[in-house]
Amino acid sequence: MQIQDWRDLERLVLAKDFKSVKAELPAFQDADIAAFMDELSGEHVVIVFRLLPKDRAAEVFSYLSIEMQEHIVRAITDQEVASIIEQLFVDDAADFLEELPASVVKRVLRNASPATRDLINQFLQYPPYSAGSIMTAEFADLKKTMTVADAFKRIRRTALDKETVYTCYVIDANRRLEGVVTVKELFLADEDAIIRDIMETNVIAARTSDDQEDVAALFSRYDFLSLPVVDEENRLVGIITFDDIMQVIHQEATEDFQKMAAMAPSEKPYLKTSVLALAKNRILWLLFLMITGMIVGAILGRYEEAFVALPILVTFVPMLTDTGGNAGSQSSTLVIRGMALKEITTKDFGRVFLKELGVSVLVGLALGAANFVRLIITYPGDYMMAVVVSLALFVTVLIGKTAGGTLPMLAKIVKADPAIMAAPLITTIVDAGALIIYFKFVEALLLK
Amino acid sequence: MQIQDWRDLERLVLAKDFKSVKAELPAFQDADIAAFMDELSGEHVVIVFRLLPKDRAAEVFSYLSIEMQEHIVRAITDQEVASIIEQLFVDDAADFLEELPASVVKRVLRNASPATRDLINQFLQYPPYSAGSIMTAEFADLKKTMTVADAFKRIRRTALDKETVYTCYVIDANRRLEGVVTVKELFLADEDAIIRDIMETNVIAARTSDDQEDVAALFSRYDFLSLPVVDEENRLVGIITFDDIMQVIHQEATEDFQKMAAMAPSEKPYLKTSVLALAKNRILWLLFLMITGMIVGAILGRYEEAFVALPILVTFVPMLTDTGGNAGSQSSTLVIRGMALKEITTKDFGRVFLKELGVSVLVGLALGAANFVRLIITYPGDYMMAVVVSLALFVTVLIGKTAGGTLPMLAKIVKADPAIMAAPLITTIVDAGALIIYFKFVEALLLK
Repeated sequence: MQIQDWRDLERLVLAKDFKSVKAELPAFQDADIAAFMDELSGEHVVIVFRLLPKDRAAEVFSYLSIEMQEHIVRAITDQEVASIIEQLFVDDAADFLEELPASVVKRVLRNASPATRDLINQFLQYPPYSAGSIMTAEFADLKKTMTVADAFKRIRRTALDKETVYTCYVIDANRRLEGVVTVKELFLADEDAIIRDIMETNVIAARTSDDQEDVAALFSRYDFLSLPVVDEENRLVGIITFDDIMQVIHQEATEDFQKMAAMAPSEKPYLKTSVLALAKNRILWLLFLMITGMIVGAILGRYEEAFVALPILVTFVPMLTDTGGNAGSQSSTLVIRGMALKEITTKDFGRVFLKELGVSVLVGLALGAANFVRLIITYPGDYMMAVVVSLALFVTVLIGKTAGGTLPMLAKIVKADPAIMAAPLITTIVDAGALIIYFKFVEALLLK
Repeated sequence: MQIQDWRDLERLVLAKDFKSVKAELPAFQDADIAAFMDELSGEHVVIVFRLLPKDRAAEVFSYLSIEMQEHIVRAITDQEVASIIEQLFVDDAADFLEELPASVVKRVLRNASPATRDLINQFLQYPPYSAGSIMTAEFADLKKTMTVADAFKRIRRTALDKETVYTCYVIDANRRLEGVVTVKELFLADEDAIIRDIMETNVIAARTSDDQEDVAALFSRYDFLSLPVVDEENRLVGIITFDDIMQVIHQEATEDFQKMAAMAPSEKPYLKTSVLALAKNRILWLLFLMITGMIVGAILGRYEEAFVALPILVTFVPMLTDTGGNAGSQSSTLVIRGMALKEITTKDFGRVFLKELGVSVLVGLALGAANFVRLIITYPGDYMMAVVVSLALFVTVLIGKTAGGTLPMLAKIVKADPAIMAAPLITTIVDAGALIIYFKFVEALLLK
């Protein structure tokens, strides 16, 4: 694999050899130029930006970090701003404007053409994480009365400004979506075939208000290259392309990782997030879980008599609570992930419960047996203690796995986010249960 | 969104109205037909398979579960087998054969043409999770001496059998990759322009042995529609398309979720995995973590004297260990995910350590203060105990976050999988540390 190394470019910039920079730049991919520019000083970045080939400046700009975008927009002339904003795809322009301070937004919009300004304003109104907010306004549209030759002519004429032309959408005079035809199908058809006869009319489309996660699931299911987005009147307003969806897939998985580790989700890469922001994302959940930890401690406190009489009992507590928590988070992780991938729905509640019950019996027996053997070797003669600890372990695994498997589904049923029922919370819940069971067994069988 | 509902089809099948089934089928997407067939009985599935339009049978087949694929192949004639295997894309055929028993594989290969057989055998040799194993052999290739018109002619002639034609690869007489040109660029070029003059020669390619995760990172970085795969001599042997990569992205994230919850990774959807297989994936890690839990218990046992003298001390243990574990897994989750997305590399070790140190000081102070206030309210007069518990909490958060942030990177440095340094193991490590610190403070400040 040959990822381009832009360290040389950096050296040229530091040596102020901008002539060489200008000569070298075009050989790099847009994403790599942006990565290189993101590392430059604010003063150099504007110089390099002006060295970019005209037709690639907007594309490189769309890959830059928001900080650099803002810096550049503040430093360049109104005319240059106008040129970028007209060249950017509307969705990229909207993404970028969303993050800017109001004064800069005003200046950018003032320099856009009225048509572009209207389109951008419309995009800015779609709720975040909706299909509308990730779609592209530039798509290839055809009429059903065209011949294949007409279609090719139209695609040729308009291709330059489209993000993709490979799936064409057939619309009527009111822009209502009537069908879809791929360029591959056009290649395979006769020059004078009529679009109406070759288009697919059974079109799967998203609405602007659909959740981006549901749209991503459609892409994964059908291997789409792009998906049409329609408004309430079934008018085509945009398309979503596979590359936007790849970002959504990454983003949604990252969000789940964060939530499942008890953090407020953040879209910024770790290294670009400040210490203060990181701390803020983590503190609330930690506080909440600290309090639940205190409750678990209070439960333990209720059995003070038992462990003062037999202090060794306390030494089994970490093993019991750890194992219960781990058993539970295995189950909750699988179920949360399965629900995110739409492999598991709340209708499967019974199946999941039975599966986890089965697994927990098997796993609980194995762990209980291993533990029993270990205890009668370490504490020969203390059979009853070995029985109590192993029995408590077995029941803990049972509770851990059934709670871990079903609580995320219950969360979903009451419209909460299943991901909150992940390891941290499951662990605390199971800890409390494990302690109560353990000391009940202790009181019943050991301290009679 | 209009996902097609195939429940009606199911009813038609149960009513044995196969004529209607045949009439309705073509209106459904391949993936939906496969989902519908996956729910049918073995007897019905073969009937429905034979009702499929000829040109879509292979595509639908590639979406079926491996169990259904095997069932169909066992039930149909040699001639039908031959027809499917020739129509399947080579990578789909190889994926399917990989899972079959040897006797069925033999029968399938016997019915394939020699050329197809050779290609499939070559694909079967690529290591799992390599670029070679996910690539497609069918791609559009051009020569640099062609005109744009020639190129279009060639694409038209060969499009039917290609998975994608939108990115064309320019190769020399020895099949060495010389450049790449998109159909969009061809649309925008003159009919008699020469490919050599419009192709991009700076091509990013993968090698057959590259890891699929690295390939996925390239796709996300550059928004590729497809990526060429070359062998050791830079000869083009296949391409990877965005839809294969979407699957890889899902699969790698799922694998990380599983590993980070202390399970052996499995590719099968949860509901299709047997109880025994689920138990097997979970038991080894649970056993290992149970043993580490015993070690933590033994550490606790060393301070028996302390908690028998002051039993209330034990009630703070769950809060301390839980908070330490949670603080640590927040950090390890972010770092593991950041490394998976290539946002963090081992070179960032120092930066991550400092960031986590900073975060842990802020979070530790906040949690310690909250805890201190709570303790002097609940146990008025017991100032020293409040100091000891809060101090221990502060240090525990410090250890949790710095260990959580750096251990995954250390794992990577010693070529282990960073994902093993996730919540379960981090929790145990931090638990041990937290207990030792806590009782050291107790011994030094409370039990003098």
